[in-house]
Formats: sequence, C-alpha cells, structure tokens
Amino acid sequence: MGDWLSTLRRKAELRERAGLRRELRPRDGGDTMTDLAGNDYLGLSRHPEVLAAAAQALTEYGLGATGSRLVRGSTDAHTALEDALAHRLGTDHALVYSSGYLANLGVVRALSQPRTLLVCDAHCHASLIDGCRLAGVETVVFDHAAPAAAAAVLAAHPGRPAVVLTESVFSVDGDLAPLPELHAVARAHNALLLVDDAHGLGVIGPSGAGGVVAAGIAGEPDVVVTATLSKALGGAGGVVAGPQALIRHLIDTGRTFIFDTALPPAVTAGVAAALALSATRDDLRATLHERARQIRDTLRASGLAVTDPAGGVVSVRADSAEQAWAWALACRDKGVAVGCFRPPSTPDQGSRLRLTVNAGVPAEQFARALEIIVEVRP
Amino acid sequence: MGDWLSTLRRKAELRERAGLRRELRPRDGGDTMTDLAGNDYLGLSRHPEVLAAAAQALTEYGLGATGSRLVRGSTDAHTALEDALAHRLGTDHALVYSSGYLANLGVVRALSQPRTLLVCDAHCHASLIDGCRLAGVETVVFDHAAPAAAAAVLAAHPGRPAVVLTESVFSVDGDLAPLPELHAVARAHNALLLVDDAHGLGVIGPSGAGGVVAAGIAGEPDVVVTATLSKALGGAGGVVAGPQALIRHLIDTGRTFIFDTALPPAVTAGVAAALALSATRDDLRATLHERARQIRDTLRASGLAVTDPAGGVVSVRADSAEQAWAWALACRDKGVAVGCFRPPSTPDQGSRLRLTVNAGVPAEQFARALEIIVEVRP
Repeated sequence: MGDWLSTLRRKAELRERAGLRRELRPRDGGDTMTDLAGNDYLGLSRHPEVLAAAAQALTEYGLGATGSRLVRGSTDAHTALEDALAHRLGTDHALVYSSGYLANLGVVRALSQPRTLLVCDAHCHASLIDGCRLAGVETVVFDHAAPAAAAAVLAAHPGRPAVVLTESVFSVDGDLAPLPELHAVARAHNALLLVDDAHGLGVIGPSGAGGVVAAGIAGEPDVVVTATLSKALGGAGGVVAGPQALIRHLIDTGRTFIFDTALPPAVTAGVAAALALSATRDDLRATLHERARQIRDTLRASGLAVTDPAGGVVSVRADSAEQAWAWALACRDKGVAVGCFRPPSTPDQGSRLRLTVNAGVPAEQFARALEIIVEVRP
Repeated sequence: MGDWLSTLRRKAELRERAGLRRELRPRDGGDTMTDLAGNDYLGLSRHPEVLAAAAQALTEYGLGATGSRLVRGSTDAHTALEDALAHRLGTDHALVYSSGYLANLGVVRALSQPRTLLVCDAHCHASLIDGCRLAGVETVVFDHAAPAAAAAVLAAHPGRPAVVLTESVFSVDGDLAPLPELHAVARAHNALLLVDDAHGLGVIGPSGAGGVVAAGIAGEPDVVVTATLSKALGGAGGVVAGPQALIRHLIDTGRTFIFDTALPPAVTAGVAAALALSATRDDLRATLHERARQIRDTLRASGLAVTDPAGGVVSVRADSAEQAWAWALACRDKGVAVGCFRPPSTPDQGSRLRLTVNAGVPAEQFARALEIIVEVRP
C-alpha cells in the first residue's frame, strides 16, 4: 500500500477531468441563500415549537445520548417519538435509529435469510442497496417503478422467500412508486414489501402520514416502512416501522441498532414536536405541492426537461455532468441553493439539477429563485 | 414469507430461553441512576459550555442540517470541528459523519480495492466488521491484540495490498491495543493501519488526543484514524482523520458520507466545545483513570475477574448470560446503571458486566455504586 496515496490522487484527477469532482461549499448560519436544495420540506427545522422542544431536552438530558439505548437506557423522548411514529405510519411499533442510512441497513439485513431474494427498484437509495450488500444474499434489480418487472423477477425464483424494496417518493426524480401494485405483486408471490418513505412522510397522504398510508397498505402484515427524521421532520435520524415481532428482532439482533449511540435526546424531542406539527399543517403541504407544480410548469415553459413531482422533489435534466455543475454554481452565485446530482448519485448515469421545495421560503423569494434558475442555465 | 412473523417469534423464544433477550429499559431525564454504563467519560455531555454552544447553534441553524453537506452546503460549525479534530488527532484532514458506525463503514470501503486483504483484530467493533462485509473483499481475523498473529496473516498473503484494523482502547474489555507494534508490522508488510480511537479520544494521550497520538504514530502516511464524537466528547457522530487524499476520496465517492444527512449543526457545535474543553481538563482525565483503577482493585479484592483498564472501560466476568443479566438488573434496582454484554455483543461468547467511568459522577455516589455492584452479585 506504499503508493496508496498516489493511487487516490490519480483517481481524483480522473474524476476531475470527468467533471465528477465534488466540493463542500460553505453555508452560513444566517442561510441567506434561497433553499431549493435541502429536504426541510415544511420549513419545520426552524419552527419555534421545534426549537423550544429541542432546547428543553438539551437542558434536561445533555447534548448526547451517552451510549446505545440498550446499554445506557432508553429516554422518554425516544419512547414518545416511537409511539407517535408508529401511530402516524399506521404500524404496530417503530424503532428510531441515529440515521436513516443505519435504519435501512438494519432492516434489510433483518428481513434476509440465507435463501432470501431481494428485489430492488433501480432507483432505490444507496442505503437500501448497501443494505442488500450487507445482507449478503442474492439481489436482483428491477426496472424503475415497474411492478410487472418485479413480478417477473419473483416468478423466475419460485418458492424463495423474497422482499421487494422501493422508495415511495423517489429521491432523485421525485416520482411516486406504484405502491398498491407493488404490494399486490409482493403478496401474490408471498413476498414482503419494504418501502422507504423518507420523502413521503410529512409530505403526502392524509395528515402527511406518508406514501404507505396514502396507498392504503399501512399496517398490512407483509409491509415494512422506513423513513428519515431529517427531511419534513427537520431533524436527524431514521425509523423502522412494522409488526411488533420485527421490532423485537431488531432490538435483539440488529447490529446497527445495538452497537450505535442513540439519537441525541434533543434531536429526538425536536423531531417529535415537528411530527405533531406536521399532522396539522395541511396549509404548508398545500404550499409545497403548489410550488412543486410551479417549478415544473415554469421550467417546462422554458423548454427544460422536468419530472412530474409527487412530493417536494423536482428534477431537471442537464446535458452533462460538467453542465449540471456549472448551472448549480451559477445559481449559487445568484443566491439560490440547488442540488446537483451527477454519477454515481444518479441511477442512470445522467446528470440533473435536483430542486426541492421548502414551504418556509418566502413566496417572492421562491418565485425569484425560479427566474434565476432559468436565466443562468448554460 | 407468509409465516415470516411466526419465524421471528420462534427465534425470539429461543433467545429468551438462552437468556439473550434484550430489553429497552426506561431512563428519565433527571438521570437519577449512577452512570457506570455510558461513554460520557469526562461528563462533558452536561457541561454548561457545551450546552451553550449547542443552544446557540440550534438558534442559528435550526434543528437539523436539512440535507447532506454536499447538496445543502457545509456549515461553518462542521468545518471548524473538522479542523479542530484534525489538529488534535495529528492528521492532515478530518471528515465528520453522522455516526461513528457510518464513518467506519465508509473508510473501510474506501481503503479496499478488489485484491485488498483486510486483517482484523478479533475484538473489533461491529461497525468495522460490517465495513469489511460491505467492502466485499477477503477478510482474515487475527488473535486479539497479537501483532505476531497479524504479521503471520500478512506474511501468508505476500504482495497483496492490505489494511490492519484495530481499536485503540477496546470497547468490550477496555484493554489497549499494541499500536506501535501493530504499526511496525503493518509497515513491514507495506500495509495500512486503521485505528478506531472511539474509546481513546479525550481519554488517553497528551491533552486527551487519543491512542494514536499516545503511540507516536499520528500523522504517519500509512495510518488512518476513526473516532466517535458521542463518547468523551459527549455528543453524536463520527470522524475519519487521515491524509488529504483520503478525505478527498471520501467526499467524492464515499456513499455513507454522500448519501447521508449531515450531523445536526447544534450537535456539531456542542462537540466542538467539548473537544476544546477536553484538551484542558487533565484533572477530569486523572479522576477517570483513578476511578478505573478503583473499580479494578475493589472488584478484584472481592474475588471477581476484572480486566486491566487502559481508559474508562472495565469488564467483569459473569458465569453465564443469565447471571450477567440478573446482576445488571439487581444493580439497576439499587440505582446503578451498568452495561450487560452478552453474545452476540461479545467477541468470545462470554458474558460480562461492562463498567464505564463518568468523571462527572460525584465521588461518594461513585464509591457507593461500587459497593452495590459487589453486594448484589449473584
């Protein structure tokens, strides 16, 4: 490994030439940029009630959880949040993780036996794919949002225990998975359906209960839900929600739960406040959906290729990785933060701007940001 | 999968019978239990300066980071913490993750090429082992804390790029890895040394700089360090520290960094305050080491089998999983929180109480807790 650093530097040069270098750009606390990049869909991360709940828990419990929940004890803040999440998601139980990534790694492994077949939508998030790798069982990818393709994979492996993996609202293009159809396919083949509702929770469904509730399959014995607490709920962490026996199994055997420091109580309490708020704020959700349509219509009217948003995510095609990057930089220079998604963050090797709605951004500022995105396109 | 829940329930019954059921026990905010279970080694999680820094960042930035750092921008709080961590750990650069688990998963994969051999101490943490699994390359486990065993593995695979993986202070038994010897072995075989300094940072070494600095190998081009920010630093999150080219590689390609919501700014700022404090508090470290010796000497005097603590972790053998569990429950009933480590959390199928020092616990309360542990043993 003597020349390992030279190897890493050579790879960095190759990425640089291919327009695939990533850069950590500074963001100030005042956050003077207009946010069309983050996942704070309802603007709750700065809501006074959320901040007050977090500040109180900070005083009560201290900064960190000081250990795993099994070793150090499980705070009331964690239990209260889990009860509220299970209720909202329409499941028996819920288990909170320190990140959505670790929740997905944990649940995919828990659902896998040596003979299990994992059947994964082509646009699934990296954490689900890494969950498949970590589970170490056979994994087959099916065409994006195509229940017939999932059915064909299952039919080709008769008699195998299987899990179909999908997101609800997809993180890259913002489209909605055909959840009722996927559930019917899974059930017909005696398979489970695992839905990552990260971009759906708080955003779609009655009271923002997410894509699984909206699809009418919440609480079914063959459906398991995961979500992040860092998007519409404005905090950090993740959750697995499902039948009691699954949660019991995760507590007893799930390595990414057992061997990880718990989510800080202050974050937990802040997320619980955001969850309660989110149920009542149909007004914010209406703003969010209206703005998502506004992005789509404005950019399409300018001749850009734009996806149809199911929630707060809209994706705009760029001709190349370099062009996407130049476009994002030009937006930033004009005070607009946008996401720039290039390989390997995209499932199809294509590059795009990813625009996300924050209902907390003032309306005029939002409208001006859309103009800027059009004005500065390469 | 129709009967998947029955299968999970059957497995739960088997674990119950084997004394391996885990239970989330409630912990109140006042935390009236005496803490011999957590990892808040210096008691900094409740330090007023730490809480003030977190509260200020909560007001400034909001509850969560609202996205990944690459998409949403990188706050000053993150940059400041990374600079301070790199300085303290004696490395070029550092990259903060939302958990230590994700930091380890990310770095092990980044250090692995298809032909790489991972050579892992038998007592390594689950996150390092999962990192090896996720990297998908050949992994060989060597006898705990035995540099000769690591050398034999490397010698048996000549010409292979290799990484030797170890903790500094081991999480289960609290002993110290022979880091200078392991580094010499790694270098002789042109291998890298990856050290998880989770239980060393803040606890051992000059100004609490950790086990790698203490061993005199910090900043060497073939050494990479990881640590958690949730132990002596009282918060949450993890860090990878090493040469600039490695950090660049992780930012460009590391999935558990790229696709994960950033550590909340309030936690980041609180940890930075704790890091600054920890450098100056040799008094707290002296208390910590004195108490660790006190645990060892008191329990040995009572005829118990106790490990030699290098930092704040002491392990006490129990005859069985059931006995360890009963002992831990009896301690809890008397107001003393202790860790109960049973398979699969132990590397040797043995069970023990794991006692950890919190220098912030009042001295009399600490002494009384030790008496209780002896009194209630099965």
